[in-house]
Amino acid sequence: MTPEEFRRFGHQLVDWVADYRAGLEAHPVQAPVAPGEIRAQLPASPPDQPEDMQAVLADLDRIVMPGITHWQSPRFFGYFPANAPLAGVLGDLVSTGLGVIGLSWQSGPAVTELEEVVTDWVRQMVGLSPAWSGVIQDTASTSTLVALLCARERSTGYAMARGGLQAEAAPLVVYVCAQSHSSVDKAALLAGFGRDQVRLVPFDDAYAMRADALAAMVEEDLARGWRPCAVVATTGTTATTAVDPVGAIAAVARRHGLWLHVDAAMAGSAMILPECRWMWDGIEAADSLVLNAHKWLGVPFDCSLYFVRDPQHLMRVMSTNPSFLQSSVDGQVKNLRDWGIPLGRRFRALKLWFVIREQGVEALRARLRRDMANARWLAEQVAAAPGWRVLAPVALQTVCLRHEPPGLEGAALDAHTTGWAERINRSGAAYLTPAVLDGRWMVRVSVGAETTEHAHVAALWDAMRRAAEGPG
Amino acid sequence: MTPEEFRRFGHQLVDWVADYRAGLEAHPVQAPVAPGEIRAQLPASPPDQPEDMQAVLADLDRIVMPGITHWQSPRFFGYFPANAPLAGVLGDLVSTGLGVIGLSWQSGPAVTELEEVVTDWVRQMVGLSPAWSGVIQDTASTSTLVALLCARERSTGYAMARGGLQAEAAPLVVYVCAQSHSSVDKAALLAGFGRDQVRLVPFDDAYAMRADALAAMVEEDLARGWRPCAVVATTGTTATTAVDPVGAIAAVARRHGLWLHVDAAMAGSAMILPECRWMWDGIEAADSLVLNAHKWLGVPFDCSLYFVRDPQHLMRVMSTNPSFLQSSVDGQVKNLRDWGIPLGRRFRALKLWFVIREQGVEALRARLRRDMANARWLAEQVAAAPGWRVLAPVALQTVCLRHEPPGLEGAALDAHTTGWAERINRSGAAYLTPAVLDGRWMVRVSVGAETTEHAHVAALWDAMRRAAEGPG
Repeated sequence: MTPEEFRRFGHQLVDWVADYRAGLEAHPVQAPVAPGEIRAQLPASPPDQPEDMQAVLADLDRIVMPGITHWQSPRFFGYFPANAPLAGVLGDLVSTGLGVIGLSWQSGPAVTELEEVVTDWVRQMVGLSPAWSGVIQDTASTSTLVALLCARERSTGYAMARGGLQAEAAPLVVYVCAQSHSSVDKAALLAGFGRDQVRLVPFDDAYAMRADALAAMVEEDLARGWRPCAVVATTGTTATTAVDPVGAIAAVARRHGLWLHVDAAMAGSAMILPECRWMWDGIEAADSLVLNAHKWLGVPFDCSLYFVRDPQHLMRVMSTNPSFLQSSVDGQVKNLRDWGIPLGRRFRALKLWFVIREQGVEALRARLRRDMANARWLAEQVAAAPGWRVLAPVALQTVCLRHEPPGLEGAALDAHTTGWAERINRSGAAYLTPAVLDGRWMVRVSVGAETTEHAHVAALWDAMRRAAEGPG
Repeated sequence: MTPEEFRRFGHQLVDWVADYRAGLEAHPVQAPVAPGEIRAQLPASPPDQPEDMQAVLADLDRIVMPGITHWQSPRFFGYFPANAPLAGVLGDLVSTGLGVIGLSWQSGPAVTELEEVVTDWVRQMVGLSPAWSGVIQDTASTSTLVALLCARERSTGYAMARGGLQAEAAPLVVYVCAQSHSSVDKAALLAGFGRDQVRLVPFDDAYAMRADALAAMVEEDLARGWRPCAVVATTGTTATTAVDPVGAIAAVARRHGLWLHVDAAMAGSAMILPECRWMWDGIEAADSLVLNAHKWLGVPFDCSLYFVRDPQHLMRVMSTNPSFLQSSVDGQVKNLRDWGIPLGRRFRALKLWFVIREQGVEALRARLRRDMANARWLAEQVAAAPGWRVLAPVALQTVCLRHEPPGLEGAALDAHTTGWAERINRSGAAYLTPAVLDGRWMVRVSVGAETTEHAHVAALWDAMRRAAEGPG
């Protein structure tokens, strides 16, 4: 494709994206397709000869679009928001258009330096001290894996440089919470800790990790000769946005030399609001934290921010220095390949830079406050309606709720809950995520898509009442 | 930013990208900036209030662009190519514009199904049997880590479900080659193997792993009670594009139950050429392989294709299944979160789909053949010129060379080599990568940027002669 052809199709696709975003209300939120339906329409083999771009764009509309679940829809209340503001789309277009790869500082100096600057902007926005250094990773799953690898190596005095994990006698233990995200458990197992050494710390009535229980488990493990290595606290859990007591957990961690990683993938965005900062009181005592700018804050995926207190340690665990990546300026620059698992790096800082500058921090704060107010409003309606219940504190923008008709319990109640949620999702009117809490299905309403206003939340509440209270 | 504003700035940026690509010849290839120069021009703190997009775009030109090393330049001969054809840029624009996240099949059915189809297209293009299943990962570094985690768990019968690596008595051993990419070593250490258990297999005169030496090392380790776990073979090494003998290595691997991972990050692209397929003869006996579509083949970064023979095993190592990601169709669909480390997934299949359709397989083949012919031409000139030497077989598109003036050896020769290469890089006329081979600096000329024609290679050869043979 020549630059002139790109100009033509590029303008066409910019209009396509603009039309898509302007017309989001018209789409059913959940893709109304059956498994295999998209695949069946695609040729089984690649074309030998070039195809007309207009044919490709026609297939985009005809085949791909029916298979899209519309995360940017104002009626998307599923999972957690993954906002992709249009300024961020532009930043990403520049990144792909440049096609520059950050293998080392020299391979694209601006890739490294803009990332240094904008991750530091976010550090300031969320009220972290200058003792933290940030880097962009793809996801919180990867960031948490990096954190646990760093914990493993600190505990063992860099066993990787000798006999590895197998040469360590005392079993290393990682403490997580039953309310932690599934990626935390996965990261521990991938890092080489066995299931037996991943201890589940109990939680309290608000679904937050109990620091006293953590302390007791650590003492118990020490008594049997095991070696406590790391604890992962969560600021804003996935099921209920529960808030683990970072300060109290940090005190236990400090007493016993545990690495403290804070998974603030979701609630990290809310730390731009001073009134929310109590949620991670004690954060300065953590060793690492992850905050997904690609969630509520709104930078197109992937843009997960990983902050550490000791970048030297991170680099010692992650660094490689083959001759073909060495340059004469190595002593004076950051080489971000030593800050994570992949060697190559997209210019992801651009989208973060575009979004923060185009919106400004005050507007970002206002949007998050809007969403929290809408979630509180919904929780109030639910709490006041007969037969409905709010199941967990609404710390942020997610409301966990259930419709509990008289006489319905156990499996029948579960069937009722997943039934009405699925009817809403199938209708295309809104998208919700059912999940299990205390062994029972409930429904999470996660408010926070960029375009979701009060009217959308009010319409959702009407739809939920109709779906749950109606004839079924 | 409203859709209407996006339309305006989007058109502007499409033109900006088109102009950039049309004008690539005008830029010095290596960014002519000093460490800290970009950072110093950026505000230390984020703006509270929104800024004018025109100001952002002006800063893009004024501050960021001088810090770009131009990987898409026809005079880029560094590292390996990372082509980003404009059709792929369009595919990525659609992906970011949609902002859909592939957490599970249901969260975006087309994200999963298009990825299934296009990774299978690539499987066919590179001549792999239908016994392979593919998935898109970010980079080869991550893919190789995934491979070694799978190897670890197969060797230990899923130790992760019990006591982890620490509960395994016999040290697990990974075999790599001194010519393997640095990411292979890094992956082994991150997976929990210690440095002591990462054995470096010797290489032959063509810099390829010696299968006989591998067999001897495996026997030696077995004799002392260690447990051979995995071997990583490379098709197209980074220093010299050497080709490890996959078939002979596979025979050793099969005899002793080793996991065989093939790093075809670079040469995998060349497997679309039937005349190159001898390079991975025996590939069907491997357990996993990685092929970076974002290198020579030309799909904008990141698009690393990871293929496995046993997807059930991969899923057993990587799977998580929290309630909030379950859906009623789970038995009938692929959930790609179980095929790698991150939970979230961009719609990366779009850019691969756009590129293959817009170009067609024949045109891709023609471009790769052009680059190989240009590399052979350069190697012939170098071999025929007095004082110049080609240092390794030119299997693909990379020429390893040195200018060896009479009487110059040791450190003085190294200084001469890095000196003339750096003079070329600093001049902006071309970009080359010096690297160490057999303990001596040499220069790698990696031909293969999308826009590099014979004339650019001829001009490079003139520039090299002037830089190395001139007064210095």
